[in-house]
Amino acid sequence: MNKINLSDISTRAPEGMDKKAVKAVTQEIVQELDELQNLLFAEHKHAVLVVLQGMDASGKDGLIRNVLGNMNPQGVNVRGFKAPTEEEKDHDFLWRIHRFAPAKGMIHVFNRSHYEDILVQRVHKWIDDETAVKRMQAINDFERLLVEHNNTAVLKFYLHVSEEKQKERLKERMEDPHKMWKYNKNDSTEIKLRKDYLKMYEDAIEHCNDVKWIILPSDQNWYKEYVVAQTLRDTLRSFRMEYPKL
Amino acid sequence: MNKINLSDISTRAPEGMDKKAVKAVTQEIVQELDELQNLLFAEHKHAVLVVLQGMDASGKDGLIRNVLGNMNPQGVNVRGFKAPTEEEKDHDFLWRIHRFAPAKGMIHVFNRSHYEDILVQRVHKWIDDETAVKRMQAINDFERLLVEHNNTAVLKFYLHVSEEKQKERLKERMEDPHKMWKYNKNDSTEIKLRKDYLKMYEDAIEHCNDVKWIILPSDQNWYKEYVVAQTLRDTLRSFRMEYPKL
Repeated sequence: MNKINLSDISTRAPEGMDKKAVKAVTQEIVQELDELQNLLFAEHKHAVLVVLQGMDASGKDGLIRNVLGNMNPQGVNVRGFKAPTEEEKDHDFLWRIHRFAPAKGMIHVFNRSHYEDILVQRVHKWIDDETAVKRMQAINDFERLLVEHNNTAVLKFYLHVSEEKQKERLKERMEDPHKMWKYNKNDSTEIKLRKDYLKMYEDAIEHCNDVKWIILPSDQNWYKEYVVAQTLRDTLRSFRMEYPKL
Repeated sequence: MNKINLSDISTRAPEGMDKKAVKAVTQEIVQELDELQNLLFAEHKHAVLVVLQGMDASGKDGLIRNVLGNMNPQGVNVRGFKAPTEEEKDHDFLWRIHRFAPAKGMIHVFNRSHYEDILVQRVHKWIDDETAVKRMQAINDFERLLVEHNNTAVLKFYLHVSEEKQKERLKERMEDPHKMWKYNKNDSTEIKLRKDYLKMYEDAIEHCNDVKWIILPSDQNWYKEYVVAQTLRDTLRSFRMEYPKL
């Protein structure tokens, strides 16, 4: 198999898609998601885990707000994974992740995830390649556990954003008063590591493949939101759920 | 490989061992364990997980009290796994187990464990063989995660007890006022399933073998305690630990 090359993959919607029409469809899907999530909660047989991975300013937060914000928060749980605490560091890297695996009936969203342990940690050379390979195997085993032993649909999205768009959004953080809170003094150093990150993402997508990745062109929010909404809708529909009888 | 046959394996100490002499040695080891555990806690590089599995009245509780009771409770954590709660049942079977995996510096003891999910559940036919095989694979993956990703030594003991000794101890529960609290109305039905349990233990020992099992002759408490104390001591010594300098 040829190694995936992210630089060859577009960060934009396919040609000819109409933004206004797509946004209207997304709105319809988002309404349907509300009903499907209620059914998931009621039937209590399946679980859904949405993993969002992408570089800084790839648009994870807006995606969560716009696609998942219409569902009942009782059945949706969003968890961000930042730098691990001391207690978390004293355990294997999946310990803190497994705790937040979705129960049956729930949709959990990971805003960053266990993949940071083979991305940021590799880019900064905090772990060697041998450890990274072992972690990839452990990640495959872990995701299989969720799929096979708790009826979990795992949807993994890599938010693929161009360098130009990334820089544009990071600049906004310094200028827009509503976005300044997102500014991080490491933003400027991290973006210089973009090529290294792309390489590590390619490795992750290639090797952590028991559950397939969806490469999500992420320069345009309307397209990204459409794809995620549609994928989640199709996944939930595929469960062929029914409300339990008395 | 020939399938292991537990009925062929002795439940008693090897011939010629002197009970009094062995008990004296065990006492010395138990003293050393206290010091080694302190070093483990101080050095903070390794973790130890002791898994105790055995049928009713195989002597798990006494073993914990006599071998591990002399160590500083700050560094030792004993967890019993009974029937899962509703919340636990809504997750994969390893979810509740992983939460109690030992942090670096800690010794955790599982009084029953994730193995119940391929023992009691199979004996009572709550799961089919296909599910059992998948769970065995998941258990191997899980134990490898602890070993490779958190420097955990996993010591798995199967407490091998004869039918006579088992019945004798269960009878004591009905007669000795200090033991009546252990009486369970299911004891008498479970012991009738002894042969089925042995078969499922054989399967578990054969297939969940990435981390080796120690088959522990358990009719005599003094011998069982000696073997566990010695194994734990040798494991801790093998870490070649040192107190951190300033």
